[in-house]
Amino acid sequence: MERQFDEELKNLREKLLRMAALVEESIEISIEGLKEQKEEKAREVLNKEDAINLLDVEIDETCLRLLALRQPMAGDLRFITSAMKIGVELERMGDLAVNIAERTLELLKTPLLKPLLDIPRMAKLAQAMERDAIDAFINRDDTRARDVCRRDDEVDQLNNQIFRELLTYMIEDPTTVTRAVELILVGRYLERIADHATNIAEDVIYLVRGKTIKHHIDKIRECSIEEK
Amino acid sequence: MERQFDEELKNLREKLLRMAALVEESIEISIEGLKEQKEEKAREVLNKEDAINLLDVEIDETCLRLLALRQPMAGDLRFITSAMKIGVELERMGDLAVNIAERTLELLKTPLLKPLLDIPRMAKLAQAMERDAIDAFINRDDTRARDVCRRDDEVDQLNNQIFRELLTYMIEDPTTVTRAVELILVGRYLERIADHATNIAEDVIYLVRGKTIKHHIDKIRECSIEEK
Repeated sequence: MERQFDEELKNLREKLLRMAALVEESIEISIEGLKEQKEEKAREVLNKEDAINLLDVEIDETCLRLLALRQPMAGDLRFITSAMKIGVELERMGDLAVNIAERTLELLKTPLLKPLLDIPRMAKLAQAMERDAIDAFINRDDTRARDVCRRDDEVDQLNNQIFRELLTYMIEDPTTVTRAVELILVGRYLERIADHATNIAEDVIYLVRGKTIKHHIDKIRECSIEEK
Repeated sequence: MERQFDEELKNLREKLLRMAALVEESIEISIEGLKEQKEEKAREVLNKEDAINLLDVEIDETCLRLLALRQPMAGDLRFITSAMKIGVELERMGDLAVNIAERTLELLKTPLLKPLLDIPRMAKLAQAMERDAIDAFINRDDTRARDVCRRDDEVDQLNNQIFRELLTYMIEDPTTVTRAVELILVGRYLERIADHATNIAEDVIYLVRGKTIKHHIDKIRECSIEEK
């Protein structure tokens, strides 16, 4: 019985890792598609969405089953409810990769405004944050989680920089507006992907450290200051 | 024992309603502060944040306790895990109201670009979506939840309209850029508030209708089509 429970927890962890890997791939391919102006890469992201959504459902069902049948206590209970919340975050990150692919399909109709450098850089940062947040969860490593929270600022700053640069394009040459707006949206989606990674990291800090209300409130303050 | 469990569930519902009311108020006051250029209203929103965060922690703890001690099955189990997820959404909506108040504090330094009409309209829509999503949850009303999902499009369109109008200001008169960007951010925060209301509505549809994987996948497709 005990061993079977461990087996099921292991299975849950593996599902989350598989989902996280798929989401990371989706982000990567969506940005490659944008940068290289390749329609087939954008389509590949759209095609991955179902697999991600299916894993989200499976993780949710697994967690509900574990809660109902195993009546886990303390640490395991918190691990399972965190896994449910993390599944939600990953699913939304997958949606945002799809949004990027949709913008790419629009942008394919006209030449790129300029070679993209900062957007791919921002994507790399967001991907690394996602990977590290999931690693932190699997290894219950709150130091790594805290580091993810801190890196969110860098992504926000990069996004502001991209936004202001594109604004200059639009002001100097209003014919660039449509294309610039699409790229502003992409920056925004990447910023939100990083926000979701930060949310996961916050869950990990709570999972590892917080048992008392006081800790949780500290955590909220700590992370929400860094978020802004 | 049974009756005590019902009492605890009722208590959980009341906490969620209280949190939802506080969040709705925060959104309302944040937009009043912006529209009327009143610093004290912006400060009031900042002051409400702790109460919202505290309720978030309490809801989470209550859910964990119910899961651990009451070993709820089927419908109740799903209700409790949904309440946990909804608490997370409400807490983020509260953060976004704080973000609006922060933009207001910046905007107080200069006269408003123009009288605000569309932004308060957008705020009203987002607030109503939040209220209806929570009502739908409390009453397990998937028809109302579906209606919330549909209204998200209206908010997105309004946000795009606001964005394009402010863009025109910036292009015609680059001295307006700073103020216009702040208002663009406010539009964006409201759009995200509406997104969170949509997320709650999706949870409700799942709670009421979905027991099988197939239903859930249908729900994801249904709502994610409307979301885009």
